[in-house]
Amino acid sequence: MTARFITLEGGEGVGKTTQLHALADALRARGLPVVTTREPGGSEGAEAIRRLLLEGEEERWSARGEALLFAAARTAHVDQTIRPALERGEWVLCDRFLDSSLAYQGGAGGLGMEEVRAVNLFGIGDCLPDRTLLLVHGEGAERARLRDGGEGDRIGSRPAAYHQAVDQGFLSLAAAEPERIRKVDAAGTPAEVTARLMTALKDLL
Amino acid sequence: MTARFITLEGGEGVGKTTQLHALADALRARGLPVVTTREPGGSEGAEAIRRLLLEGEEERWSARGEALLFAAARTAHVDQTIRPALERGEWVLCDRFLDSSLAYQGGAGGLGMEEVRAVNLFGIGDCLPDRTLLLVHGEGAERARLRDGGEGDRIGSRPAAYHQAVDQGFLSLAAAEPERIRKVDAAGTPAEVTARLMTALKDLL
Repeated sequence: MTARFITLEGGEGVGKTTQLHALADALRARGLPVVTTREPGGSEGAEAIRRLLLEGEEERWSARGEALLFAAARTAHVDQTIRPALERGEWVLCDRFLDSSLAYQGGAGGLGMEEVRAVNLFGIGDCLPDRTLLLVHGEGAERARLRDGGEGDRIGSRPAAYHQAVDQGFLSLAAAEPERIRKVDAAGTPAEVTARLMTALKDLL
Repeated sequence: MTARFITLEGGEGVGKTTQLHALADALRARGLPVVTTREPGGSEGAEAIRRLLLEGEEERWSARGEALLFAAARTAHVDQTIRPALERGEWVLCDRFLDSSLAYQGGAGGLGMEEVRAVNLFGIGDCLPDRTLLLVHGEGAERARLRDGGEGDRIGSRPAAYHQAVDQGFLSLAAAEPERIRKVDAAGTPAEVTARLMTALKDLL
């Protein structure tokens, strides 16, 4: 069976990381070799860039400088981790990828999705996901997240309007590429969500 | 008088750094406030990226990853050093800028000048040089450089064909933008070259 490149996307607190590992286990249970990875980071060079992005003053990088660093980190991640795994015949499951840059920096951050996409494609070429699983908050989860003020890091702590713009960005990407990007309801037990994710991969299995 | 952004460009060993400081002195002697800077680097964030580019294994960055890191460093350099100086009314003299990425990575490195330009313009926007002084080797200097095998660092030590492609790239850029890019003969004494550079700035003074 052809190795596949699968990405998980979605806003903060939607359970991507938990589901990434559950999905990897479900695929391995079918006998498939699976590599899990994440962005930003995921390779030695990309982690070094990730540290640059997290260190130092807030004003150290402009939004455009930051977008170029994310694109450089993604290029190293593809070169050092993703492409080699696919060439070995392994499935790659990645927690966030290009669509996150488009939704966060291109859409919510105002740089423009097509401009951000072009800069990234310069680096990664044709190494694009075969399928992207977009975890979508149920109504209740959305309210709880807004009530709790989101996660504590530099991006998670941005205002609710920013996160709503991110969610809108993901939905517009899904509408533009319905074959690649499948929306999956994140409500219910973790096992229920994993079962939905596997259904959304059925045609690739 | 309007502050101007001036870049010096050219291949290895053509005397750019010496001329940068001589030119700054000549402009200061006319009462102009001058900031000198250089790439890669030139600001705190850009120097941090420069260290990433110089550290580690040769294979750590692909040509495209490297080009994105140069573009991110240039963006930080513009944001933190060049644009603030111009806004204070100071002239900026910069040792290498965008045209070096176009000649080295776009042309000699094979990534394509227009692709490399687009990635850089994403970051730096309209902060482009008012005048670019391209130092061009005299015939004798060229032979001496080839005989000596070039400078010792990672780029300077590449083969002669690479440096010839760089020189060709600079000349094609100068042919496309003769108003901005002025070719200046690097032969003769340092004082003779500085005088030629000042002549090439005369309409801006």
